[in-house]
Amino acid sequence: MSTFQKLQLFSLTTVAAFLVAPLQAADPLPSWNDGTTKQSIVDFVNKVTEEGSGDFVPVAERIAVFDNDGTLWSENPLPFQVIFAAAEIKRLLPEHPEWNDNAAVQAFIKSDVAALTANHNKGLLEVLALTHAGMSTDAYDQRVKDWLATAEHPRWKKPYSQCVYQPMIELLEYLRANDFQTWIVSGGGLSFMRVLSEQTYGIPPQQVIGSHGQATFEMKDGVPTLTKTLETVFVDDKAGKPAGIYQFIGRRPIAAFGNSDGDQAMLEYTTIDNPRPSFGMIIHHTDAEREYAYDAKPKSSGKLITALEAAPTHGWTVVDMKKDWETVLAE
Amino acid sequence: MSTFQKLQLFSLTTVAAFLVAPLQAADPLPSWNDGTTKQSIVDFVNKVTEEGSGDFVPVAERIAVFDNDGTLWSENPLPFQVIFAAAEIKRLLPEHPEWNDNAAVQAFIKSDVAALTANHNKGLLEVLALTHAGMSTDAYDQRVKDWLATAEHPRWKKPYSQCVYQPMIELLEYLRANDFQTWIVSGGGLSFMRVLSEQTYGIPPQQVIGSHGQATFEMKDGVPTLTKTLETVFVDDKAGKPAGIYQFIGRRPIAAFGNSDGDQAMLEYTTIDNPRPSFGMIIHHTDAEREYAYDAKPKSSGKLITALEAAPTHGWTVVDMKKDWETVLAE
Repeated sequence: MSTFQKLQLFSLTTVAAFLVAPLQAADPLPSWNDGTTKQSIVDFVNKVTEEGSGDFVPVAERIAVFDNDGTLWSENPLPFQVIFAAAEIKRLLPEHPEWNDNAAVQAFIKSDVAALTANHNKGLLEVLALTHAGMSTDAYDQRVKDWLATAEHPRWKKPYSQCVYQPMIELLEYLRANDFQTWIVSGGGLSFMRVLSEQTYGIPPQQVIGSHGQATFEMKDGVPTLTKTLETVFVDDKAGKPAGIYQFIGRRPIAAFGNSDGDQAMLEYTTIDNPRPSFGMIIHHTDAEREYAYDAKPKSSGKLITALEAAPTHGWTVVDMKKDWETVLAE
Repeated sequence: MSTFQKLQLFSLTTVAAFLVAPLQAADPLPSWNDGTTKQSIVDFVNKVTEEGSGDFVPVAERIAVFDNDGTLWSENPLPFQVIFAAAEIKRLLPEHPEWNDNAAVQAFIKSDVAALTANHNKGLLEVLALTHAGMSTDAYDQRVKDWLATAEHPRWKKPYSQCVYQPMIELLEYLRANDFQTWIVSGGGLSFMRVLSEQTYGIPPQQVIGSHGQATFEMKDGVPTLTKTLETVFVDDKAGKPAGIYQFIGRRPIAAFGNSDGDQAMLEYTTIDNPRPSFGMIIHHTDAEREYAYDAKPKSSGKLITALEAAPTHGWTVVDMKKDWETVLAE
């Protein structure tokens, strides 16, 4: 080999080493502290993606489902969609003097939860009807966009779309890098979440499952028009989550991530008696300093009692936010 | 350049030519006869996939929606799901002597369409309830699989899953090769179609939209169990198609394919006032020899009057099955 050839070989090897080294060293989950929690995720992903192993899961079946409120983004001081509804009521009130005599609106303005939730949430549904139905789907999307562009979280003083958990963003990307399809399965509004899911989480609208009323379609002055309604409302919470997964995906997930008893049925459906290897995870909010600390008695949503009790039995990993997350909010 | 170098260059060029040539020459739609119909598809795909052009559509927005009955597979002599329901009634009758006194079942057995469709399809819904609800989703899937594995089309003497249109199978593959996401949007049953959509059409269950009742979930003796019901039935036909697209996809398609007036709203939603370039196509069943010929007065489903009239106004391509398809059924 000539000196020139040797030099060539050396430089090629060096370039190759530089190219490969960062890939090997890079930690896909840098905001997760090392420990059994983080390891349980990595072990599961390695197991189901190892070709030839008995635990290998074909790409088409790598479905991972995520709750949204309290799992991907914060749900405090109130679920963000409720804050949006309140802002909408305030914004629209001057055009609607009749709302001054509307008991539901008044209860909502006074945060009178008892009044709103009486008679099977009659008041809350009325406020939802005023702010989430009766307009075209395009008009609704624009309202959510306008609110997201201007509203600020009262504590963190930044847009709500930035009040998302950095470790979960990394987890979504890590799973997708391993050919998982990532889905949102949330009690939140389907249309509401879709406005931000793609940009915020990298999850396209067709991979969002949420509560919704049936939209109606008509040609209006020659223009195709979809109108939001609260007809045949589907509530994507508790047993509604596996039902929603069946309806929208039609395939059993192999990984589920939640933070409340509302996610328990989804975790059970994903991990119990599943012929494929499966993974369940509960985010336990233990960090009052960096985020919020709550479980059995949350100030707003996110009650976590029975799912936490069931976790050891079913092998669900419980994230101790304070201990397991090096970073909480995304920058 | 030395002779050796010239030879090297020559052989590289030759190899490159061989590598490239088949790609250029291969016709992705061999079962479509050359002509304006086929050309309209190719022109549209070329247009929206040409980077830098004003008509370019980003991959995420390349959504194509297909009706199923009469568009991807035959709907004669009866929609195949109706034939399945009849087979199920026959199979289960010995276990259900009470069905001998059931007016709906008797009307179904006698093909008494008037009796079945009276009172807003009361009889038909009753037969559907007996054959499509009340069992676990797994048990239902197995029943459809068993039927598909044994039943034969009365005319073509082969499984119903093979009574699909070869040109449409090629079209699905061609669109996917150009990074389209292909969806079924059909009046047929959601669960019914999902049993065969992946293997038959290459369309995974989560890209199927169809008529459905709300499934329910419960833990039954410790086993997660989904049960099919006919509660809050969603009919994915006519104006229900754009509504279903909004609900499941949340994004406007840029290409729609149908064969009946039931697809007109979906074609309108896709092609009228769409900020993106769009494509609409109607399969006109004109070939009694190789398949069936029908439009205004179909023997079973697939009435096509108003959508055919509207086609020229909206620039929808109309497929003349007899003229445009070199092959009809897939082998």
